[in-house]
Amino acid sequence: MTKPCALLFDAFGTIVDWRTSLIDELTVFGLERGIKADWTGLVDAWRGAYVPSMDEVRQGQRPWTKLDDLHRATLDELVEEFGIIELSEAELRHINRGWHRLRPWPDSVPGLTRLKRYFIIAPLSNGNVSLLVNMAKHSGLPWDLIFGSDLFHHFKPDRQIYLGACELLDLEPEQVMLCAAHDNDLRMARSLGLKTAFIERPSEYGPHQCRDFEADEAWDFIATNVETLADQLADRSQ
Amino acid sequence: MTKPCALLFDAFGTIVDWRTSLIDELTVFGLERGIKADWTGLVDAWRGAYVPSMDEVRQGQRPWTKLDDLHRATLDELVEEFGIIELSEAELRHINRGWHRLRPWPDSVPGLTRLKRYFIIAPLSNGNVSLLVNMAKHSGLPWDLIFGSDLFHHFKPDRQIYLGACELLDLEPEQVMLCAAHDNDLRMARSLGLKTAFIERPSEYGPHQCRDFEADEAWDFIATNVETLADQLADRSQ
Repeated sequence: MTKPCALLFDAFGTIVDWRTSLIDELTVFGLERGIKADWTGLVDAWRGAYVPSMDEVRQGQRPWTKLDDLHRATLDELVEEFGIIELSEAELRHINRGWHRLRPWPDSVPGLTRLKRYFIIAPLSNGNVSLLVNMAKHSGLPWDLIFGSDLFHHFKPDRQIYLGACELLDLEPEQVMLCAAHDNDLRMARSLGLKTAFIERPSEYGPHQCRDFEADEAWDFIATNVETLADQLADRSQ
Repeated sequence: MTKPCALLFDAFGTIVDWRTSLIDELTVFGLERGIKADWTGLVDAWRGAYVPSMDEVRQGQRPWTKLDDLHRATLDELVEEFGIIELSEAELRHINRGWHRLRPWPDSVPGLTRLKRYFIIAPLSNGNVSLLVNMAKHSGLPWDLIFGSDLFHHFKPDRQIYLGACELLDLEPEQVMLCAAHDNDLRMARSLGLKTAFIERPSEYGPHQCRDFEADEAWDFIATNVETLADQLADRSQ
């Protein structure tokens, strides 16, 4: 197999642990303000609305809307549904920006730091550019550049976002590898000619995980985390 | 003055020394192949065609064309004009990619590395994304993200490229500072509400330098190089 030149990473779930980060942050937020609420339930419902809200954009029911704004629209509904009242605009804005402060899995920064020596590394995410750059600054993710969905006005798995990133890099799809914890993301990448690496994140959804426990196809690489992906790729990069 | 959140840098001339880099590389290229030519003249003529070729795009005489392709079209004309014959397609491609291998001024990497601790840093350049990412990998420029003109289908000083970068960062123009060695670039940025920093590069054009020896307006910051810009900004970032 020819070596890829660029590695593109799914962000939510693959690089950062959105669920534990948000639950922890909101639990502290509630304790500090004396607000009792089912924060874990809210986080799971918030993520549950992620794909349906992007589908509304994809199917033309909403004009292009960046993920920060989809997150906020969902949050506004959920605080009512969960009986969380009297939050100020500044507090709602702060909660919504929690997606900019997600913590990486412990292997993400050391693994990416190693891979950056040999490859162009970038997120290829449904997050918007500002979300992804703030996340990188917050956690020290050492990206070379950032591909957010607002560059393309398309969400994954629309083909335009994968091919758009290849075009901006001036690379053929086979020179680019998508690294993700989700088989459906990899399936689209492979169908377009990109190389593929599955990264196992069996606890991404906590007790609600119902798929992606392991690779369901023979992806080009299958790794338990970003550091073991670097172990596998480093041999090919000497 | 409120502190900017993001610093955007002009690349050619401000961060990298395009003239000496290209002359050195082409001189070695010629010696290795026994091709005698006025490489210095070719480099100066190549850069001389830069603004006119972008103007053709700006004025609608050409469709959107990324800088790599404008460079190549000019190069094809210049090798004839300079009597450099029998270059293969691979050699022409290699020469054109010289713009991806430009060397930074000695202060660029240490200065940017310090500034990255306090600010989001990115190029805002007429170069295309692939040119800028390859340049960063080649020279260790520690950008957080990359703004190339192909993200916007506009060249500076079109307003869309400055405002497009602010929008992708989700920052107001006054939260963003353009850092450049060229007064005209800073003038457009200031007219749109961005903060401005002039970086002196009085030898950018070698003996042909005819302007931008010093700041011609009272920009927010005026610095002799990127390290002294970091000296000035670090005080405000504590």
